[in-house]
Amino acid sequence: MAAFAGPEIERLIALLAKLPGMGPRSARRAALALLKRREALLIPLAAALAETADKVRSCSICGTPDTRDPCSICSDPARDNSLICVVEEAGALWAMERSGAFRGKYHVLGGLLSALDGVGPDALRVTELVGRTRGGEASEVILALPATVDGQTTAHYIAERLAGSGVSITSLARGVPVGGELDWLDDGTIVQALRARRPT
Amino acid sequence: MAAFAGPEIERLIALLAKLPGMGPRSARRAALALLKRREALLIPLAAALAETADKVRSCSICGTPDTRDPCSICSDPARDNSLICVVEEAGALWAMERSGAFRGKYHVLGGLLSALDGVGPDALRVTELVGRTRGGEASEVILALPATVDGQTTAHYIAERLAGSGVSITSLARGVPVGGELDWLDDGTIVQALRARRPT
Repeated sequence: MAAFAGPEIERLIALLAKLPGMGPRSARRAALALLKRREALLIPLAAALAETADKVRSCSICGTPDTRDPCSICSDPARDNSLICVVEEAGALWAMERSGAFRGKYHVLGGLLSALDGVGPDALRVTELVGRTRGGEASEVILALPATVDGQTTAHYIAERLAGSGVSITSLARGVPVGGELDWLDDGTIVQALRARRPT
Repeated sequence: MAAFAGPEIERLIALLAKLPGMGPRSARRAALALLKRREALLIPLAAALAETADKVRSCSICGTPDTRDPCSICSDPARDNSLICVVEEAGALWAMERSGAFRGKYHVLGGLLSALDGVGPDALRVTELVGRTRGGEASEVILALPATVDGQTTAHYIAERLAGSGVSITSLARGVPVGGELDWLDDGTIVQALRARRPT
């Protein structure tokens, strides 16, 4: 593909096509946009990627990618050490931070248990989480994991591993999302929202 | 956005969001994928972009991006010098090449005339095209421009500029695309396909 454009562009397209949401066609469009906007996009993006590869590491405490270690959140004295929010990936952490509703610390698992994908407990940062709860500062672990089979399997596994540690283990509430029309919601969500109904 | 992840990641997300088809959300997903796949994706993509920025230039004859000047197509002795296919961008050239149906040379305009976007004739490589047809080798200029108002305005402008040069000027046929159900085609295409009907 695009061999007539030289191996460099061909290789660039092949790599762009590996990004989530990209395919061969959108990768070609992206490569063209980069070639057209050499000074404004191609060179800055090359530099940003090189800098990220060079400077960004996983935080040794929570596992989130950052240029600092411990990361900005772990080293922020204003944040509550007694709350640890467990997330699958940094993307979930960023979503929690955008909500502005959480002022505790995080723990990034780096994935979910998955029999299908062959992801076992050793691939996740659960032992590190157990170690953090042993430190004595944490009083609550909030499991902010996806409401999927893998997410819930992982939640149960973590709850088991933390049993007896003395910290309380909670999960994000399930229910009707803000702006959610009942008509468009799946049955499972309606069942959970009904079970967890609260006085208005 | 994502300021808690350090300015490098924030900047990377902002640049990724400028790629066509990407928005803030998909740029975050792409950045996460890059961070997760450091060795397999982040470092190779940084290198591919740097190499492209470093080596790829526009061909001084046809304007297509390539590491060679003249480009691989312009310097290919097996290709027919008497045919010049005029395209808007390298993306259209790549599409023509994928079809495998054209063995002549190309001329990349670098855009289309657009009153709305303020693109005038000087922004396009039309004078270079006129110069190429004066060389004497070209006998036909094929306008492979989009079937849009800007595409057709540009086609008319080029036809005017080439008038009296002695080369014949043709355009890609309009009609029902392969696999095209009449039910889903716009009226304009049906009108053109009917007008240009041919004996079966």
